[in-house]
Amino acid sequence: MKNESERKESLSIVIEQINNLLEKHKIVETLVEKQDAPKQKIIKNLVNKQNINKLERLLANLHPADIADILESLPIEGRLIVWDLVKVENDGDILVEVSDVVRQTLIADMDSTELLAAAEYLDTDEIADIAQDLPEDVLQNLLESLDVQNRERLESALSYPESTVGALMDYDVVTIRDNVNLEVVLNYLRKLGKLPSNTDKLFVVNSNGIILGILPLKAIVVSDQMAKVKDVMSSDPVLFGPDDLAEEASDAFERYDLITAPVVDKKNKLIGRLSVDAVVDFIKEDAENEKLSMAGLREEEDLFSSIWKSVKNRWAWLAINLVTAIVASRVIGVFEGSIEKVVALAALMPIVAGIGGNSGNQTTTMIVRGLALGQVNLTNIQRLIYKELGVALLNGILWGSVLGTFAFILYENIYLGLVMTGAMILNLLLSAVMGVMIPLLLSKFGRDPAVGSSILITAMTDSGGFFIFLGLATLVLL
Amino acid sequence: MKNESERKESLSIVIEQINNLLEKHKIVETLVEKQDAPKQKIIKNLVNKQNINKLERLLANLHPADIADILESLPIEGRLIVWDLVKVENDGDILVEVSDVVRQTLIADMDSTELLAAAEYLDTDEIADIAQDLPEDVLQNLLESLDVQNRERLESALSYPESTVGALMDYDVVTIRDNVNLEVVLNYLRKLGKLPSNTDKLFVVNSNGIILGILPLKAIVVSDQMAKVKDVMSSDPVLFGPDDLAEEASDAFERYDLITAPVVDKKNKLIGRLSVDAVVDFIKEDAENEKLSMAGLREEEDLFSSIWKSVKNRWAWLAINLVTAIVASRVIGVFEGSIEKVVALAALMPIVAGIGGNSGNQTTTMIVRGLALGQVNLTNIQRLIYKELGVALLNGILWGSVLGTFAFILYENIYLGLVMTGAMILNLLLSAVMGVMIPLLLSKFGRDPAVGSSILITAMTDSGGFFIFLGLATLVLL
Repeated sequence: MKNESERKESLSIVIEQINNLLEKHKIVETLVEKQDAPKQKIIKNLVNKQNINKLERLLANLHPADIADILESLPIEGRLIVWDLVKVENDGDILVEVSDVVRQTLIADMDSTELLAAAEYLDTDEIADIAQDLPEDVLQNLLESLDVQNRERLESALSYPESTVGALMDYDVVTIRDNVNLEVVLNYLRKLGKLPSNTDKLFVVNSNGIILGILPLKAIVVSDQMAKVKDVMSSDPVLFGPDDLAEEASDAFERYDLITAPVVDKKNKLIGRLSVDAVVDFIKEDAENEKLSMAGLREEEDLFSSIWKSVKNRWAWLAINLVTAIVASRVIGVFEGSIEKVVALAALMPIVAGIGGNSGNQTTTMIVRGLALGQVNLTNIQRLIYKELGVALLNGILWGSVLGTFAFILYENIYLGLVMTGAMILNLLLSAVMGVMIPLLLSKFGRDPAVGSSILITAMTDSGGFFIFLGLATLVLL
Repeated sequence: MKNESERKESLSIVIEQINNLLEKHKIVETLVEKQDAPKQKIIKNLVNKQNINKLERLLANLHPADIADILESLPIEGRLIVWDLVKVENDGDILVEVSDVVRQTLIADMDSTELLAAAEYLDTDEIADIAQDLPEDVLQNLLESLDVQNRERLESALSYPESTVGALMDYDVVTIRDNVNLEVVLNYLRKLGKLPSNTDKLFVVNSNGIILGILPLKAIVVSDQMAKVKDVMSSDPVLFGPDDLAEEASDAFERYDLITAPVVDKKNKLIGRLSVDAVVDFIKEDAENEKLSMAGLREEEDLFSSIWKSVKNRWAWLAINLVTAIVASRVIGVFEGSIEKVVALAALMPIVAGIGGNSGNQTTTMIVRGLALGQVNLTNIQRLIYKELGVALLNGILWGSVLGTFAFILYENIYLGLVMTGAMILNLLLSAVMGVMIPLLLSKFGRDPAVGSSILITAMTDSGGFFIFLGLATLVLL
């Protein structure tokens, strides 16, 4: 038996070996390219064959999820060499595991026959997960190859938006009736011989498929075999609809420690199940995506994707920043006369703007968190603003005094020091109000406050900071 | 049956009702305070008693996790009123559910007897979760009240650092021997009558407690009752050690779709289990904590904590920012002579610095993500730097030209435009190199690259951007 850290270690050894083998492969290739002699070609074939065999053996022993990791860490050429060596029965699982961008590079390397062969090893809900990256004709072929029930399931799975329960659910439900006893259930399960992964409960339905309750495996094994299902089942399970938000479902999974839960339509008819592994995947992906969008990356980026693709992914954010920077620049432009007279202002103004931005982002992070946890609502906004104003005032007096003293010592001008202190206090107060209001307004207008808040706060505290500092200086010093 | 969105809705109605009741309570209190007549006191008692009864009824129907949510969304006075009305048997569960800072406010409101009563309803691993917030004498009393086994468990649970498997594991293991058949197992389970939450498998151990394998409930219910445990069990389960990092364990749970897994000591002796609900809690908390530290919040902050506490939580970050801002300011100070001659420089310089910071943060976000997923390693750093330099060059030429043109049109000075373009290109190149190197170096020195990178990048691109732009301008324009 291996424990998790041993597994990780052996995995990194495998990655190193693969990199070495790929390196050798490349050296042989370039050698042959340089000296195009027939003898070299024979050596190439020999050496490469050896390497390829070694690679193939290494890969054969790995879990699909581990191969997916390796593929993601390889540059595109190495990735495709390794991908060609993976057994066809693992292709489907790996396509499900890799990130969207890496999947696209792998699928681009496969023809229709290979793709259809890979899809044969997948469940309907897994096909739905990779469907967006499949070529139109392959998807069409796939749909035609399925039976009526699975085709309907695939079509409906494809119709749900990405972050809903419908997109995360699977169809691995085992249903039973409520009027039989547990012995009958056990006989039925033995006949089935195998239960879907994560099965912790059976779903109890009536003849119309309406859910009546759930029967945990735990209850089956501890109860008397003569007991009726309806007397052992729990008749008040947590239910989800396919249109429920995945985020709310994941909260419920965390709150009630769920493993699987029934997904039902509006009439409580069972249509699938949501299981904890899909929820965990969602939570991790959601946290990752939020980090990406906070830095203005529109989508996940393959580390080895082309420069051009990366520029396209990142340009929008830089463009928005450019606009806010130009606005701030024009605010400074208004005060060029003052700066010409007291050039120290130019050196001091970025400090005021910068600290304001950081302080505002701290406030926003608190509020965004409170919004996500449902702790911020109409009844306590006023209170929160007062608190943040208090924090800002204290910070303003503290850091404003430090900076005022700094400015006074450096430029030997007491008024400059006072302007600095005053501007710091005012800009921090501005950042506190904005830090509370901006995420609230974004959320009120249905936008994700975690994504847009930071850039708006910084825009406000930059332009605001320059205006407050230079305006105050113009009034006091000139 | 209620589905999740209905539950959420009813919960928010309850919160509103509680707020209304608390509001009434406050109005009555102030009324009485203002007019200290005996008649008013009687009214107060009547009205309050009614409100309190209503509140108590509302709370009695809620899940502890929901009450925890409500407590977190209430300001401190309301929170304590509600807390006093919660049934004692729920106190423990709620203390486990609420965030650390809110727990502290609740515990501060309880005396030793109440705390000991609440702890009686908790498992050893749950007591360990809240132990850090308990007063020393209560913890001592608790330890003394436990039997030998549970005392040892609690002491060992308290000894593991916060983000290890040992701190997350529980002791709810059901063990069996490998030489009995499933019928015996089923009889044993029926005698137990109840299985711990999340139980999806039994742990197979020998007489020394060494783990031999796992027996999923799924396997029990589908297999022949005469089969021996050793023939049905899986003998190669994923194992964890108590010192393994929680983050690696959570990766393994995601990768292998685990519900529970055995935790063993170095000799493979079973000491506990890790279950998916603890892992999900960890993942969510970890993501939250990362967001907080990215904004420089040292710890979770109670939305309603005192101004003074908030200032203490946030000051370190602002202090670091102050230092980097002062450095940047001194860089500008060096070029005050140039700014005095061409005052337009003061208005344009923040643009160069700002875009550099944003672009650098995009690069860093990619690298931090790659590091966390194990995709960035020594073999591909060079490649990544080249790619990021390419992206920076392209962005530099693109946005540099836009800004150069903007500067030229605004100030009618072609050289100023050229300086702007050149500085943009150079600062973006700097931000690309720093964006790759800073997270790599932080991670090499054992620091979390997700936390410190952003502030270092911004410091580099600010000071660097001012230096490049003003230096270039001094060379070209003066």
